[in-house]
Amino acid sequence: MGSSNTTNPTVFSGIAAADDVKEPFRPLKPEDVRSYIHEAVDFICDYYTTVESMPVLPDVKPGYLQHEFMASPPTYPAPFHVTMKELKASIIPGMTHWASPNFFAFFPATNSAVAIAGDLIASAMNTVGFTWQAAPAATELEVLALNWLAQLLHLPDTFMSHTATGDRGTGGAVILGTTSEAMLVTLVAARDAALRRSGSVRVFGMPGLVVYAGDQTHSTFFKACRLAGFDPANIRSIPAGPETQYALDPAKLLEAMQADVDVGLVPTYVCATVGTTSSNAVDPVGAVADIAASFGAWVHVDAAYAGSACICPEFRHHLNGVELVDSISVSPHKWLLTCLDCTCLYVRDAHRLSDSMETNPEYLKNDATDSHEVTDLKDMQIGLGRRFRGLKLWMVMRTYGTAKLQEHIRSDVNMAKLFEGLVRTDHRFEVVVPRNFAMVCFRIKARGAITEEAADEVNRVLMKNPNKTGKAYFAHTVLSDRILLRFAVGSSLQEERHVRSAWELIKRTTNDLMMD
Amino acid sequence: MGSSNTTNPTVFSGIAAADDVKEPFRPLKPEDVRSYIHEAVDFICDYYTTVESMPVLPDVKPGYLQHEFMASPPTYPAPFHVTMKELKASIIPGMTHWASPNFFAFFPATNSAVAIAGDLIASAMNTVGFTWQAAPAATELEVLALNWLAQLLHLPDTFMSHTATGDRGTGGAVILGTTSEAMLVTLVAARDAALRRSGSVRVFGMPGLVVYAGDQTHSTFFKACRLAGFDPANIRSIPAGPETQYALDPAKLLEAMQADVDVGLVPTYVCATVGTTSSNAVDPVGAVADIAASFGAWVHVDAAYAGSACICPEFRHHLNGVELVDSISVSPHKWLLTCLDCTCLYVRDAHRLSDSMETNPEYLKNDATDSHEVTDLKDMQIGLGRRFRGLKLWMVMRTYGTAKLQEHIRSDVNMAKLFEGLVRTDHRFEVVVPRNFAMVCFRIKARGAITEEAADEVNRVLMKNPNKTGKAYFAHTVLSDRILLRFAVGSSLQEERHVRSAWELIKRTTNDLMMD
Repeated sequence: MGSSNTTNPTVFSGIAAADDVKEPFRPLKPEDVRSYIHEAVDFICDYYTTVESMPVLPDVKPGYLQHEFMASPPTYPAPFHVTMKELKASIIPGMTHWASPNFFAFFPATNSAVAIAGDLIASAMNTVGFTWQAAPAATELEVLALNWLAQLLHLPDTFMSHTATGDRGTGGAVILGTTSEAMLVTLVAARDAALRRSGSVRVFGMPGLVVYAGDQTHSTFFKACRLAGFDPANIRSIPAGPETQYALDPAKLLEAMQADVDVGLVPTYVCATVGTTSSNAVDPVGAVADIAASFGAWVHVDAAYAGSACICPEFRHHLNGVELVDSISVSPHKWLLTCLDCTCLYVRDAHRLSDSMETNPEYLKNDATDSHEVTDLKDMQIGLGRRFRGLKLWMVMRTYGTAKLQEHIRSDVNMAKLFEGLVRTDHRFEVVVPRNFAMVCFRIKARGAITEEAADEVNRVLMKNPNKTGKAYFAHTVLSDRILLRFAVGSSLQEERHVRSAWELIKRTTNDLMMD
Repeated sequence: MGSSNTTNPTVFSGIAAADDVKEPFRPLKPEDVRSYIHEAVDFICDYYTTVESMPVLPDVKPGYLQHEFMASPPTYPAPFHVTMKELKASIIPGMTHWASPNFFAFFPATNSAVAIAGDLIASAMNTVGFTWQAAPAATELEVLALNWLAQLLHLPDTFMSHTATGDRGTGGAVILGTTSEAMLVTLVAARDAALRRSGSVRVFGMPGLVVYAGDQTHSTFFKACRLAGFDPANIRSIPAGPETQYALDPAKLLEAMQADVDVGLVPTYVCATVGTTSSNAVDPVGAVADIAASFGAWVHVDAAYAGSACICPEFRHHLNGVELVDSISVSPHKWLLTCLDCTCLYVRDAHRLSDSMETNPEYLKNDATDSHEVTDLKDMQIGLGRRFRGLKLWMVMRTYGTAKLQEHIRSDVNMAKLFEGLVRTDHRFEVVVPRNFAMVCFRIKARGAITEEAADEVNRVLMKNPNKTGKAYFAHTVLSDRILLRFAVGSSLQEERHVRSAWELIKRTTNDLMMD
C-alpha cells in the first residue's frame, strides 16, 4: 500500500468508484479512435489557418500553466472534448509557434501533410522495431527510405545501406532522433576503435584520445564528446574566422592534429559541418577528410540542416568529398518536410557501429538474427526501443517525389534571396556573411558616429522589440564578437508575403531606433 | 553538378518538368492535411478491427520489401492514396503486429485513442522544445504531467519537478525516449560527480569508477555503461538466482562494493530494477539504496515496465525505498497507454544532470534562461531537439483519469492471473517464478523420462511452432540455464478470449509434442 513517507496519499482515495463502471475499458475502441482523431484534425486545420495571427512568442510568465490546471491528476475520466477545450484555452496561448509563418528563428522545423499522416499511422501501429524479427517491414522500409534519400543526396555507394540483408561489409544507415545521437554513436565507435588499435586496456587509454571541430560546430557536438567520456582537455575547438567565412581552416586542423601527435596524443575524430547553425558556413569536407585520413581519425559530417538542400544539383557541391568520410548525418526534420524527429545517419562501415553498440540478451535472440541475414537496427543506436520513423520519411519521398521536394528547397532559398535583396537596398544594414542556403545573417552596421559596440546594442534591441510584438520571431548569434540577426526562412506555412512583412517590421523598428 | 564520383546520376534528370507546375507547392495546405489524415484514420480503424486475424509474425524473408518497391525514389509526385495503397499492399503484410491482441512477446507497447490523438497534435504543431522560451507551454505541460504521474506513483516530494519555475535545488524530471537514455544521462551525471569528488583530472580517474547491477538487469544498462566510457572490467553484473527469485541480493551487492573499495576502486552507480525483463523480478530498492548510500554511489531505479502498475495501491509496495534513491525512470509507453516513446525520468537533484548536460551557445541565449526562473529541458537529456511528448502523457491522464488507468492495469493483471490458473491446471507445465505483474513465466517441466535438457528442447519448439502459425507471438528467456516461455499480457486490444485462445494453442502444440 505504498511506503508511509510518500506524498499525497489522497490520490488513492475514492478509487473504489471505478468498480461501478459496467462496460470494460477499451483504450483502442475504433469508434473512439475515429472520433478523437477527427476532433484533433479539426483542431489542426483550424490551427494552421489561424496560427499566423497568433503571437509567435507568447506573453506568458514562468510557471503560468501551473495556475491554469489542477495540481493533481483527476480521479475520474473526462470526455475527450474537455481535454481538447483545455488544450485550446490554456496550452495553445502559451506555445511558441514553430508552425507560424512568422517564425524565422533557429532552423525551422519543416513539416507536411504527408509526414503528419505517416507519423499518425506509426503511432497507431506502435511497432517497436529493435530487431528485424520484431518489425521486418519497419526495418526494411527504413533501409529502403534511407537508400532513396542517399540517392537524392548522391551519396557514394559505400554509404548505401545493405542492412536489411545482412551484407554489413560496407555501408549502413539508421534513423535516429537527433544529430546529437548520430554524433554520440559515431564518437563511441571511433573511441572504441582507437582504443583497440592502440592496444590499450580500454578506458586506461582514454586520456590520449583527441577530437576536433571548428568553433562554429554545434554545441551539441562538444556535449556528445563529454557524454562519451572524452577528456575536456582533449576536445579541440578550432577558431574559424571571417578569413574562411567561419568555416574550419584545414591548415589549422592539420597543425592541431600534428601538435597532438607530437606529444603522444591520438587524433580520433573530426566533425565537419555543412551549414553551421550560426551562419551556414560550410567546412571543406574533402580537405578535412584528407587530413584526418593521414592521422587515421574518423570523420563525421554534420549536415543536419543544409544536407537537405543537397538534393538539388545546384547545392550538391557542398558535399563534395563526402566519399572520403566515415559518416554523415542529415535531419529531414529540419528541412525535408518530415516532422520531428528524423535524423538519418550513414556510415561507411556498419560494423564499426555494431562493434560498440551490439547487445544480444536471451530474450531478443531469434532465428533471423542467428542467420546473419538481417541487421537489427538496435545495434546502431543508443537505446533498444525505436519508433517506426522510416514510414513518414518514405511516405514523404513517395508522395511528393523528388520534383516537389526540390521545389520546396528552392522556394525557401528564393524567399531568403528576396529578403537578402531587401536588406541590401537599405544602407543602414549589412549582410554579414554570404548567404549559402535559406538563412540571411545581417545587422545594422557601424558607420559614422555609430561604433561597433553601439551597433551591437542597437542590433540586440532590433531583435528583441519585434519579438515582443509577437508579429515575428528572430534569433541572434555572435560572429567575431559582433551581434547579428539570423533570418531563417522555411516554416512550412511561409509565403513571400510573410517575408516582406517581416522586413517591414524590421524597417519600422529600425526607424524608431535610428534617425537615418 | 555534384561530385563526379557519386552514384546514380540519373536521379537528377527530368527535373526540369517541375517548372511546369503552376500552383506553388504548399506542404501544409489544410485541405490536404484534412484529407490525408482522414484517409489515415480510416486505415487505422480498419487495421484495429482486422489485425487480430492477421499473422502476428509475418512470413516474409529478409530483403522482401526491396522486391516490392522501386530501388530509386520517384521523380514525380503521386496522389496520397497511391502511397496508402502501397502501404497496405506491401508494408502491412510484412509487419510484426505489436497492436495485435495475439501479441504476448516482450513487454507490450500499450496504446490508446487519446495518446494517438495527442501525438498527432504534437506532430502537427512540431514544436522543438529545447528551451523554455522556445516552447513555454510544452515545457510547463511536461513538468505538470510529470508531477501528476509522480503523484499517481506516490513518489516522494523530493522527486517532484520544480523545473518550470527554476527552483532547481530539489527534484527535476524530464521525458526521454527510452530507458537507455535515462540510464545514460544518470550514468554520466554520476560519473562526472564521482570524478569531481575524487579530485581527479577528469577521465584520468575513469579507470577507478565501478558500476553495479544484478545480472537480470536489462542489457541496455550494460550498453549504456560502455557508451559512457566505463571500463568493461569495472561493470559488475551480480548473479541473481532462484534463492532471491532472480532479484539482486543486497548481501552480494555489499560484498562486491566492499571488495572494490578494498582495492582502491570507487563505487559510482547501482541500477536496481523493478520488474526485470526476463521474469519481472523486483530488486529490493530500499536495501540496495541503503548499501549504495554507505559508499556514496548513485542509485537508479529502472521501473520501465512495472512502474506503471504502481499507480495501483496493491502494487505500490514494490517501490518502497524509492525515497532513498537518486533517480527513477518509468516508461508509460510500456504499460500506461501512451504510445512510443515516453520514458519519464525523475532525479532527486536536477542540478546533477545539468552539471553534466548543460549547453549555452550564443544562438540559444534568451532572457528567460538568463533570469534563472526557468529550466531548459535540453539540459537534462542527450540531445538538443525534443518533441512535445508531454502532450500525450497529459492528455492520457486528463481524459482517462486515475480510475480508468488503474482499471487498465488491473484488467491486464487479471488476464495474466487467468492464464496462470490455466497453466497450473495442466500437470505438464510449471510456473517458474511467482507472477508479480501481468507476465507469466512457465515451461513444460522435466518429469519422468523427460530430462531438463529434453524439456528445454520441447519448450523451444513450444515457442517456435505457435509463432510460425501466426496465431500468436510468444518470446522466451533463460533462467538458471533453463528455457522458459514469457507470456506477457497487455496489448491494448487484448481481451480474455485472446488469452484463452493462446492457451488452447499452447495445449494443442503440447499435445502434438508429448503423449501425456
